[in-house]
This record gives sequence, C-alpha cells and structure tokens, in this order.
Amino acid sequence: MKLQAPFFTFNPKSYFYGEKLLELAQKADTLAKKYPHLTILITAPYADLANIASHTQHIIVTAQHMDGIDPGRGMGAVLPASIYQAGTRAVFLNHAEHPLQLTALIQSMKKAKELGIKTIVCANSLEEARSIALLKPDVLLCEPTELIGTGQASDESYIQETNHAIKEIDPDIYILQAAGISTPEDVYRTLKLGADGTGCTSGITEADLPSQMLEEMIESVQRVYEEGKDGR
Amino acid sequence: MKLQAPFFTFNPKSYFYGEKLLELAQKADTLAKKYPHLTILITAPYADLANIASHTQHIIVTAQHMDGIDPGRGMGAVLPASIYQAGTRAVFLNHAEHPLQLTALIQSMKKAKELGIKTIVCANSLEEARSIALLKPDVLLCEPTELIGTGQASDESYIQETNHAIKEIDPDIYILQAAGISTPEDVYRTLKLGADGTGCTSGITEADLPSQMLEEMIESVQRVYEEGKDGR
Amino acid sequence: MKLQAPFFTFNPKSYFYGEKLLELAQKADTLAKKYPHLTILITAPYADLANIASHTQHIIVTAQHMDGIDPGRGMGAVLPASIYQAGTRAVFLNHAEHPLQLTALIQSMKKAKELGIKTIVCANSLEEARSIALLKPDVLLCEPTELIGTGQASDESYIQETNHAIKEIDPDIYILQAAGISTPEDVYRTLKLGADGTGCTSGITEADLPSQMLEEMIESVQRVYEEGKDGR
Amino acid sequence: MKLQAPFFTFNPKSYFYGEKLLELAQKADTLAKKYPHLTILITAPYADLANIASHTQHIIVTAQHMDGIDPGRGMGAVLPASIYQAGTRAVFLNHAEHPLQLTALIQSMKKAKELGIKTIVCANSLEEARSIALLKPDVLLCEPTELIGTGQASDESYIQETNHAIKEIDPDIYILQAAGISTPEDVYRTLKLGADGTGCTSGITEADLPSQMLEEMIESVQRVYEEGKDGR
Repeated sequence: MKLQAPFFTFNPKSYFYGEKLLELAQKADTLAKKYPHLTILITAPYADLANIASHTQHIIVTAQHMDGIDPGRGMGAVLPASIYQAGTRAVFLNHAEHPLQLTALIQSMKKAKELGIKTIVCANSLEEARSIALLKPDVLLCEPTELIGTGQASDESYIQETNHAIKEIDPDIYILQAAGISTPEDVYRTLKLGADGTGCTSGITEADLPSQMLEEMIESVQRVYEEGKDGR
Repeated sequence: MKLQAPFFTFNPKSYFYGEKLLELAQKADTLAKKYPHLTILITAPYADLANIASHTQHIIVTAQHMDGIDPGRGMGAVLPASIYQAGTRAVFLNHAEHPLQLTALIQSMKKAKELGIKTIVCANSLEEARSIALLKPDVLLCEPTELIGTGQASDESYIQETNHAIKEIDPDIYILQAAGISTPEDVYRTLKLGADGTGCTSGITEADLPSQMLEEMIESVQRVYEEGKDGR
Repeated sequence: MKLQAPFFTFNPKSYFYGEKLLELAQKADTLAKKYPHLTILITAPYADLANIASHTQHIIVTAQHMDGIDPGRGMGAVLPASIYQAGTRAVFLNHAEHPLQLTALIQSMKKAKELGIKTIVCANSLEEARSIALLKPDVLLCEPTELIGTGQASDESYIQETNHAIKEIDPDIYILQAAGISTPEDVYRTLKLGADGTGCTSGITEADLPSQMLEEMIESVQRVYEEGKDGR
Repeated sequence: MKLQAPFFTFNPKSYFYGEKLLELAQKADTLAKKYPHLTILITAPYADLANIASHTQHIIVTAQHMDGIDPGRGMGAVLPASIYQAGTRAVFLNHAEHPLQLTALIQSMKKAKELGIKTIVCANSLEEARSIALLKPDVLLCEPTELIGTGQASDESYIQETNHAIKEIDPDIYILQAAGISTPEDVYRTLKLGADGTGCTSGITEADLPSQMLEEMIESVQRVYEEGKDGR
C-alpha cells in the first residue's frame, strides 16, 4: 500500500477501540476503495491493530507508537515485529503525548525502515521539525504552538513557513497539518494551502455521527484531488 | 477463568510473537484442558493478544503491562479497555524491565480491578514486596536480588522468607517464584518449597524444543498438584 | 538538628533562588533560633543548598529530590553524598512534580538513611500513603486529591482519616498537611486539627511581603506549640 | 570566559565531590592560568557547583545537566537560573547516562542560550549528531558506538568522519572527542587527529595520582597548541 499525497489520517488515540473503531475503519476502507488515489491511515490501540488489519484492505493500519527493539527481552515494550505481523504498516512517533528521547526516536525509525513501516514523526516547534527532517521520516507532523494562529491568514503563513523549512532540508518528506481540523471545510482549506495530508481526532470522535463526519472529510480530500491538486 | 494455585506462567517477553507464539499458546491450551486444576498464564506482545485469545479457551491471556487510563487521550499508551476486549484477563505490572512510578502502578491496578484483569505485580526487594502487598495484587512476583542464593538451601530460606513477609501482610496474595527456572525439576522443587506458582522465560524460549519443555514443565506442576499439595 | 513536631516547611520549589531565597532562609533561621522548640525546613534548588546551609544554623536545609546512588557514574543525577556535604539534612521524594518509580524511591530512602538525611515522602492517595508508610519515611505528605474538600469540615475529616491510616501502620511517622495553606490562620487550624507539621509554597512566594508572611506563619506554629499542643 | 579550541574537559561525573573535587578544580585553575590559550572545563555535581566556582577563576564550571525551565514550579528539577548564579557557565546535555527527549533538549538549549551557558550536547550515533548539529550546540560530543575502533587507524577515520559530518552542517560547532582517553598520549593524538577538544573521566578518577594525571593531560593539550595547531 502506497503512502502518497493527498492523504488523510484518522487518529482516534485511545477514544475508540473494539467494535466502534472497527466500524469506522471499515467505513474508511470502503472510501479508500472508492477513491483509489487517496491514502487513508487509521491509528488503533495496539491490541486492536490485528483485528482492524484483518477486516480491511485499502487503508494503512497505523500504530500510535513503537519501541526500537528486536525480538528478545523488552518486557512491556511495543515490539515492531509483532505489530508488523499484525498488519501495521505505519506508526506515529514522538507525539506530544508520548515524547521520545532522541536516541530512542532514531532507533524506532531504524526498525521501522527495516520492516517497511512508514513513520509519521511529530514535532513541537519548527526547530524540532528541522532536526527531525534530517532523520528522513516519511511524514512530518509539525504543530508549533508558538505559530498556530486563530485566523485563516495566520494559518496560511504558518503552513507555508513549515513547508518551506522542511522541504528545504528534504523535499521528499510529506507534511501533515492537522491542528484544529474540525470540519470538512477545514480539511479542504488545509490541503489547498499546501499540506500533503491532514487529519483529525476529536472532530470525528466527538461528532454526533462519527462515521458521517469521517466520510465527509475524506470526500473533501477527494475534492482537492479532483481539482487537480496532487498534494506535492 | 479462575487464577488459583498451583499455577504456571510462561512469559516469552518479546522473544516470541506471531505464529511461533500462537503454537505454544495452543499447546498450553491443550494442557490446560487436560489438567483442569492448573492455571496456565501466557504473556504476549500487545498486538498478539487478540489472536491468541481467539484461538485458546483454557489459558489466561496475559499482557506485559498496561497503563492506568480510561478511553480518551493517551496517544501511545496501552489502553486497558482495548486489551480487555481483545481477551486479556491478567497483566504484569512493574516488571524490572518496565518499572512504574508508584502513582502509576496504583492507577493501573485500579483499572485492572475495574475491568476484571488479574494483576501480577513485580518487586525487586522484600521491602518493595511488602509495600506492594498493601495494594492487594492478585499475584506478587518477588525476586530480591540480595537474597537469591546459588544453592538449593538458600533458595529454600529465601522462598520461605518471601512467603512469610507477604502472607503476613495479606494471606490472600499468591506468591510467584520464577527466578532461575530452567528445568521441569526446578518447577517441581519451587512449588514444593511453598510457592503458589512458578514460571519461565528463557528456559522455554531457548530450549531446543520449546513446546516439549513447556509440556514437561506443566506436567511438573500437575505432579505437585497430584501429590496433594494444593498450593496454599 | 532534630526534626520534631510541630514543624513548618517552606518549599519555594523553583520560584526562588540566589539572594532572594537566602534572605528568606536567614529570616527563617532567626525565627528558628527564637523559637527553639519548632523545626523549620526550607527547600532550595540543588545549586543553592550549600550557600544556604553555610549561612544558617537553626533550620533544616532540604533538597527537592535526590537519586539513590553512590559516588560513581550517574552523570546528571543528584548525588546524595554531594548534597549531604553541602549541608542538606532532609529531602523531599516522590513529589507530584517529580514522581518516582517505586524501586527508585526505595533506593533513595535507603541512601538517605545511610547518610542521615531525613525523608519527606509524598503520596497522591491514601492507598499510596499506606504503601509508603511501610517504607518508614520520617515524614509523610499525603494530599489525596479525591478527599480534599472545600470547606473546613471536610478538611477535618480528611486530616483525621489520613492520620489514622498512616499512624495505624507506623505511629512514628510524622504527618505533613500542606494543601491549600495560604494564611497564618490556615497554619494554625491545620496543626490544631492534628497534623504534625504544615507548610507552604505560593502562599509565601506570591505574598506581597514573603518575609513577613513567613514570619507570621511560623508564629502561628509557635502559638500552637504554646497552647500545649505537642504535635503528636 | 571564552570557550575555544583546543579545550579539555574533566568530567568526574558522580565519582568525586566535596574537598577532593575542589582540590582538582583548583589544580586545573592553576593550569588554566598558566596556559591562558587553553580552555579547561570541569563538571561537578549540582551541589558542588557554587563552591567550585567561588574558589576558581580560570576554568569553566560545568553542570552535568539542566532542565529547560524558568523559575516557577518544577519541584526537583535542575533550575538553570540557580546553577547560573552559582557560577556555572557550561552544561552537558543528552549524555548517554541522562538521555533527553528531543523536545526537552531543545528547551534546555534555549534556556542555556538565554542565560549565556555554553552547551555540550552528546550524540550516540552520527545520525543523532547531525540532527543535533542543526540545533547549534556550542560543542558536540559524538561517540558513535558503531564506529569506535580498537586500533589507531580506525580512530582516525572515525574522527574525520565525525568532523566532516558535523562541520558540513555547521562549521562553527566544536567537536569533542573523548572516547577511551586514558593517557596524556591519547590526549595528544586525539587533538592531532582533528578534534577541537578532548576530555576524560576514569582516566583521571582512577589514576593513582589524579592531580598529576590531570596536569599531564592538560600539558598534552598545551603541547598541541604550541606545535601550531589551533584546534580548528
């Protein structure tokens, strides 16, 4: 499964699991089949990964973290080989809720590369984003709190500044912009402003009809695609 | 599924996963069915839990750790509700390879109790074991490095001292003694010396025939059971 | 220097350092000399400990944490032997802003005992407090968020419940109650309700005249002492 | 005090403290006065920093770590403003014995810059070193375990490779090479091979006469300086 722009990431964190999460993943799978040019990633708690992977075919099942270890000791660690065999093909690393030591981040990225797991690495600041860009993640999620504005204009300059800072270091890294996405319009606007991908947590988990919101957001991504924007 | 003495814990840590681990779990399941008075627990990496639980009926599928969180945020955390729905019914906590802050340990134990997940809590010293005993774990694994002897005699006094220290605080806590178990004879002797349960990692994972070693060790537990020792 | 009830702890955390902190420490030292039956403890950032200790004689200079290590490796750790030779004679451990792994807490308490450093160990819940009480800290600071009331009545039952739970395990442990202390009256009332000691952070650091507030709070402790309460 | 090449770092970690450390620091201070073109840095446990700084004039007193916080909360943290007022003018960060989350490393470096504290940042691999180089540390200590050879030849290629990788990103960063330095000859050879600075822990702390070894190593640095090598 190829990770390409424009892509959409549904990251329900620990809000959803079990049946409820599976239903949304299957919905996303149907949409990914319908819109074959889009890449759709869905995260799941570790113990849900296998179940979701075995019931879907067109989405990239994504872990919320993994440790940079080989099979062996490591009691309690998240074993890359285990999540890979369960069907995981991408992983978030260094999320603000699970920050990593730099040495550990590098180790986890190395194992991901060995296994063929795509890396979505998070940064808290432009400085951190540039430092991570040198490590060649597949996707960089940069949400510099100091830059995030409230209006549309500031969003625009922020997205452009982030894009420029990262692509100057490595033009092959995809930029994921997902701050404050709560409507299908936010999805559309963010991609139009130059992000390679966008995504959502609470905008979907707290929607009255999560499945419908997921569908509408993905349709926004498709609309951007059809308007001729290829995300790069 | 009831956790009762004598019990046996196969903890392959991150050595095994996928098919290889499933085969051993199924072997254990067969033995657990054959010897209905024994409790057999098998740990698995998080992403393997569901697969093992859905292919076994008589063993207690056990996680290597879990965080004390409710569904919600907690990106990258091990969500108790997720591992429970996957079939997990016991969890190791505070293992020497994954030591916990005391506050976090208490929080994880609380969530385990709410969900009906048995807790196997590890201690590095008698002092730590007594402190943990007050928190009412289901099983206490105490491997005080300062006491572990090399000969059989010192093992005996160590096991008795541990038993006494814990049961004096709470007689309902099961004692798991698993230090240096590498043969079926070690399993037999340890239980005969008063442990409620015993277990093994490398003695099985590094055996020429892990499946056969697992079987022989469990047969040792059955032998103890049949000789009239009820483990309490 | 003896740690005995009633005692008062001024814990400026990282709010104060250098000259400003030294002045307050010297003020406290004058008061400790004037009221010889009171024990006054003052915490300081690590690099301030020596300076404060060398300019005071009657207060207990207290560290905000220390690691349970002997001289040797441990780059970046807080070396007990170093803070002891600098004049430190008490240490906070497991504060909510610096929670410790249980194994590490036990190790730090052991080093403190070896060197003659008094331990003030913090607990987040009654359950945690009882577990820590078994480890024989000199002082236990228990601030169970679930119990802290808003009115005086609930404070009273909370203090009594904490006292009972701890003293039942070990009557020799001093109880420090310091939640929400912002006036000299709070100091008086808390000690009258049965706490062995009380203390303050922001009530002093954010007062218009920190030095005067410190003095008035300590005078409240003296008033309790004179009214015949011996703190036990 | 200027940090310039060639420089020497004596990092006794937690091996020495108090009088013993002060004596060595004073010895180094005498040598730094005698050889004014050399920069000599000495680390100390936090509670020793003030004492060493107030008894020396020509060395750079160096902390083993600091947290990226402003005065405020942060119980138990290492407060930059406190170590600065104690006389600290450099700090190690991200040492293998105290690895930092990337976000925290950036925060600590920011505070160091604000206060005028030089940063010596450690990397475990060339990849990590390049990532850190983008953050503009004053000194980069790179000890890639995968590259460290046993013979002199491999040392040479390793030092050159490191130098090249870092200076290509930022030519202003000083390179500290300190792996396996145990004799004055090691000091001489390492600087001759192109390192801007070198340093030592156990080569001095475990020497029969630490003070003499310190002196001879610093004289080796002076010899390199006099032979016309300016370290850049």
